[in-house]
Amino acid sequence: MKVRVGINGYGTIGKRVASAVAAQDDMEVIGVTKTRPSYEAHLACAEGYPLYVAKPDQVAAFEKEGIKVEGTLEDLVGKVDIMVDATPGGVGEAYRELYERAGIKAIFQGGEDHGIAGVSFNAYANYKESWGAKFSRVVSCNTTGLVRTLYPLDKEIGVERVSATIVRRGADPSDNKGSALNSLEPSLKLPTHHGPDVQTIMPWINITTMAVKSPTTLMHLHCVIADLKKEVKESDVLAAWDDVSRVRLVSGKRGLKGTANIMELAKDLDRPRGDFMEIAVWQDGIKVVGKTLYYYQAVHQESDVVPENIDCIRSMMKMEPDASRSIKKTDTSLGIGE
Amino acid sequence: MKVRVGINGYGTIGKRVASAVAAQDDMEVIGVTKTRPSYEAHLACAEGYPLYVAKPDQVAAFEKEGIKVEGTLEDLVGKVDIMVDATPGGVGEAYRELYERAGIKAIFQGGEDHGIAGVSFNAYANYKESWGAKFSRVVSCNTTGLVRTLYPLDKEIGVERVSATIVRRGADPSDNKGSALNSLEPSLKLPTHHGPDVQTIMPWINITTMAVKSPTTLMHLHCVIADLKKEVKESDVLAAWDDVSRVRLVSGKRGLKGTANIMELAKDLDRPRGDFMEIAVWQDGIKVVGKTLYYYQAVHQESDVVPENIDCIRSMMKMEPDASRSIKKTDTSLGIGE
Amino acid sequence: MKVRVGINGYGTIGKRVASAVAAQDDMEVIGVTKTRPSYEAHLACAEGYPLYVAKPDQVAAFEKEGIKVEGTLEDLVGKVDIMVDATPGGVGEAYRELYERAGIKAIFQGGEDHGIAGVSFNAYANYKESWGAKFSRVVSCNTTGLVRTLYPLDKEIGVERVSATIVRRGADPSDNKGSALNSLEPSLKLPTHHGPDVQTIMPWINITTMAVKSPTTLMHLHCVIADLKKEVKESDVLAAWDDVSRVRLVSGKRGLKGTANIMELAKDLDRPRGDFMEIAVWQDGIKVVGKTLYYYQAVHQESDVVPENIDCIRSMMKMEPDASRSIKKTDTSLGIGE
Amino acid sequence: MKVRVGINGYGTIGKRVASAVAAQDDMEVIGVTKTRPSYEAHLACAEGYPLYVAKPDQVAAFEKEGIKVEGTLEDLVGKVDIMVDATPGGVGEAYRELYERAGIKAIFQGGEDHGIAGVSFNAYANYKESWGAKFSRVVSCNTTGLVRTLYPLDKEIGVERVSATIVRRGADPSDNKGSALNSLEPSLKLPTHHGPDVQTIMPWINITTMAVKSPTTLMHLHCVIADLKKEVKESDVLAAWDDVSRVRLVSGKRGLKGTANIMELAKDLDRPRGDFMEIAVWQDGIKVVGKTLYYYQAVHQESDVVPENIDCIRSMMKMEPDASRSIKKTDTSLGIGE
Repeated sequence: MKVRVGINGYGTIGKRVASAVAAQDDMEVIGVTKTRPSYEAHLACAEGYPLYVAKPDQVAAFEKEGIKVEGTLEDLVGKVDIMVDATPGGVGEAYRELYERAGIKAIFQGGEDHGIAGVSFNAYANYKESWGAKFSRVVSCNTTGLVRTLYPLDKEIGVERVSATIVRRGADPSDNKGSALNSLEPSLKLPTHHGPDVQTIMPWINITTMAVKSPTTLMHLHCVIADLKKEVKESDVLAAWDDVSRVRLVSGKRGLKGTANIMELAKDLDRPRGDFMEIAVWQDGIKVVGKTLYYYQAVHQESDVVPENIDCIRSMMKMEPDASRSIKKTDTSLGIGE
Repeated sequence: MKVRVGINGYGTIGKRVASAVAAQDDMEVIGVTKTRPSYEAHLACAEGYPLYVAKPDQVAAFEKEGIKVEGTLEDLVGKVDIMVDATPGGVGEAYRELYERAGIKAIFQGGEDHGIAGVSFNAYANYKESWGAKFSRVVSCNTTGLVRTLYPLDKEIGVERVSATIVRRGADPSDNKGSALNSLEPSLKLPTHHGPDVQTIMPWINITTMAVKSPTTLMHLHCVIADLKKEVKESDVLAAWDDVSRVRLVSGKRGLKGTANIMELAKDLDRPRGDFMEIAVWQDGIKVVGKTLYYYQAVHQESDVVPENIDCIRSMMKMEPDASRSIKKTDTSLGIGE
Repeated sequence: MKVRVGINGYGTIGKRVASAVAAQDDMEVIGVTKTRPSYEAHLACAEGYPLYVAKPDQVAAFEKEGIKVEGTLEDLVGKVDIMVDATPGGVGEAYRELYERAGIKAIFQGGEDHGIAGVSFNAYANYKESWGAKFSRVVSCNTTGLVRTLYPLDKEIGVERVSATIVRRGADPSDNKGSALNSLEPSLKLPTHHGPDVQTIMPWINITTMAVKSPTTLMHLHCVIADLKKEVKESDVLAAWDDVSRVRLVSGKRGLKGTANIMELAKDLDRPRGDFMEIAVWQDGIKVVGKTLYYYQAVHQESDVVPENIDCIRSMMKMEPDASRSIKKTDTSLGIGE
Repeated sequence: MKVRVGINGYGTIGKRVASAVAAQDDMEVIGVTKTRPSYEAHLACAEGYPLYVAKPDQVAAFEKEGIKVEGTLEDLVGKVDIMVDATPGGVGEAYRELYERAGIKAIFQGGEDHGIAGVSFNAYANYKESWGAKFSRVVSCNTTGLVRTLYPLDKEIGVERVSATIVRRGADPSDNKGSALNSLEPSLKLPTHHGPDVQTIMPWINITTMAVKSPTTLMHLHCVIADLKKEVKESDVLAAWDDVSRVRLVSGKRGLKGTANIMELAKDLDRPRGDFMEIAVWQDGIKVVGKTLYYYQAVHQESDVVPENIDCIRSMMKMEPDASRSIKKTDTSLGIGE
């Protein structure tokens, strides 16, 4: 029998998680929730996902637009084994008690604090920590990106200290209220929260971060300076990432000069929604000087956490004890690594 | 036997035409050409398209990158029935003689002048004019967009005069050299060439245009003011476009407020490469005052001409005498109208 | 004795009007209001403008930042002859009664409806209509721009019908929350309000407008199609604008290709704040075909209404009966036309 | 007698240096050169700067536009004591011999290599090294920015190691060919050249840099991580910059959240051309953790080197032996520090 999954919030992350769940053979989408009868609600129906509303008083608005509503979130929690909470950052907290009362498991996203679940998740680094857990939290897109490259580096080579600067995209492509159109805006609270967030997965790592918001929509770009525990060659760095399917090398020399080119590659590869779920690392932008490693990586903020949610379901639902087998199953279903 | 198609230039348009040809059951991709061994050349090989170079001296560069080269453009013209010339604007002219000498047919794109072929093409408006032609020209993305909405209006209602303003995208998403980052730049040569270009398809129409370049990458946006031959209701306007599968209504009220939302819709619809091959017309942005009609439409510059190229092949190769049957076949294969 | 002017709202427009008032020899800034102790409040003090707060409970916040507060808006209205209300659009309405009660005159900005004052203002077109008025409204930046070029055209040549498309800047340069970063967004309510707003100044003119928001910050750009009452030459069009100091011709051939270049010109001309208070019309982007005139103009949304506010004060305060003399005085003080 | 200064290249930097020279009482602009009769050539004439062309065959084009040409660059070198070479990066090299032959001194800009002059200049850090020199080089905008904050930190506190990430503006505001419109592009050659360039001024400092190009026009933004030689408080850091007039603290809390707000401040301060010649450091974005200092600074790429050029003239021409007196004189004339 397939694991029954609900998705609370059918937005940027929620709609992608729904597609990813639907692409698995061991789980199914029981329902998704929406608060407004927008075109995305129509599409959810067209995809065949039963549609629920967050609150009863929203039903009328949907019906006026000719959208069939299956029930409310209260109804949906009664029908699923696990809920992926993809509500906006900070909102998940309010639903925690509802999930608990209904006796279902729930995955929160990186917009929530670690404390909401007490355990945070990355498939490579700590798959087992969420084994059978009632609640877990898939860390944010940026944290996922940093963990994906730093964890193997630390494991294979050893990392003494990391200083990373995150050049953030200002808004998502379809956000109608964006950031300033022509400005660079630093995150003044220093060091930024990204370092401590990496430590929810790798508590032992010495990492500090700075961040700047830029008027672009496609990807975040990380500039990473890592002091390693020993002198290595660039080929050793590449070797550390060799088995990590969710890190993909790209080449500036071959024309992949910036984030726009990487998103074009994703379209050319016919990825669902043109998403690029791997972390892109520039192969010709890796440099080791003494024990210090420099590299750039790009993070597709809309999708890199999607496969992590799938693996997190498998861990929490005790569906697959072996992390690498879950990862491989997820990757194959989503075209990752092709 | 399938019609054998070559594609000269595997760039923004060429790669999309290749995918579209490959999706048809009555034609096949015999080869594509590339001038540089970029990542797109690798992808063409991965897609299984035989790769040719424009000139013999380019072979070495490809082989150095481990890319198998099947031959040169001179070789390719000997193997195909028809060449889709998707070289950069103004370059096609130089290849015309080669195609003629090789005795093959060729389709040029809108970056060339009408005179290169003597006949220009739009599937709805003049499919038959290219019937059996040696050369034809698929008009540009903007012209295709204007013809798709104006031709049915003129046919069903009658159009006295059109004034359109084209807000152009500054560069394509993956262009590394774009337009000014924060500027609006008018096309000073007035009226702009778009009006006369529409007249290569609809010589009788009275149309003048202005144009402004804007720092955005996703779509062009047209503001159209059409004086009609009689007073009609907005529902009559919608009825005129009812059977035109390549015009798609979108709704600002449902959240499709701008071009970014439309491109998001294309991704959500799982369109190949996230393309939106229809012309998007805002349903809630149509207004008739007296005999004057106002409407907005958005044009995906990278893809709206792709289905036109397919239909043009069918007309030139005498594969399907009925325009609407060719259109339907093309649309079904590409997901248009779903 | 100088006319005593207060400025309610020291933001984008208010701070510029304050500088402009201070540059006149027949009026003076008595005080400006601010709601938050931002850096602009510090600058207002540094400029020597007495600072007032909108509401008594805001005083503490200012004092905490070391900013001296002279009093509240209620105090300020008791000290001035006329208030320039430069509060955000729609807010002025709420203050109207306060001004009335205090027995002072007030100028509202284009974000308010015409009805707030019953009379709208443009220095060239209807200076006399505000003569001695208690309230008047300086029309918006876009309307000011359209009136500045259309009024002389209509007067000298005669205008039958105008269709204008307004490519709007998405946000002001220093707005931290802007429009979508990479999208074009049409104004779906058609025809847009700009036409009727022009008619508050020129009630007889036949004008309709469309509008598109673009991700740029510097200027609006208008594409104007005007059917004239007779056939003229381009030189006749130029002649109509000859005496209009607030229309300035620019040349694409000389490198002023877009709005960014025009703002660079303003800086090179050492204009206060780098403002461009004239409407820029591209000299090499004017075309007459038959009786139809096409032209492009750029509007600096932050400043074109500033000289209008000054002239409006003179008209309302009966300081100068001759419009052209007020205009000349204002222009000279602000460097317009140099 | 005033020092006679020529400016070769009246573009972004050249026109600003001309204005700055003209604002001094101990030097004067003898002439400027231009290669095309653009609007900037007209403005140079309007400013009263004698205009020279780079090559004799350019004279006709200028005269056709009604611009009076005083002679060629060959003529200008015969009339000046020192030439500020503000030609595009890499072009200065070609003129070096001409200056040498004419027996005049010359200042090159940061687009040239250190080797062109053998000595590089920053007013605070090494004013005396250019004393009486025949040639010197004012380092680039980014290097100037880094030296202005790092030199005092190193002198007052001691700096062990610096890791800086430079988020570059993609193009200048008036560039009509910019960078990619919606992309982030890393500088793949690592570490980037900025570190070694800082070492042309401070050869002893341990600094490495990374860089990312962003689609914005206003300023560069630096994220600096400096390991200090001892533990200090944030107030010690501020104290180190206390006497450095060309470093200016800005406050995010007061509304200066990003680079756009800082450029707005420059306009509000009525700076010439709206330039911000100081390095802006966010006061509420400074953090010391242990011995590690984090801070953000913004660099106005069009103008921060302008006062350095003035001081460099004084040092090379032996006009003022005391660096701090030259700096003060320059700053006062340009409004820096007000």
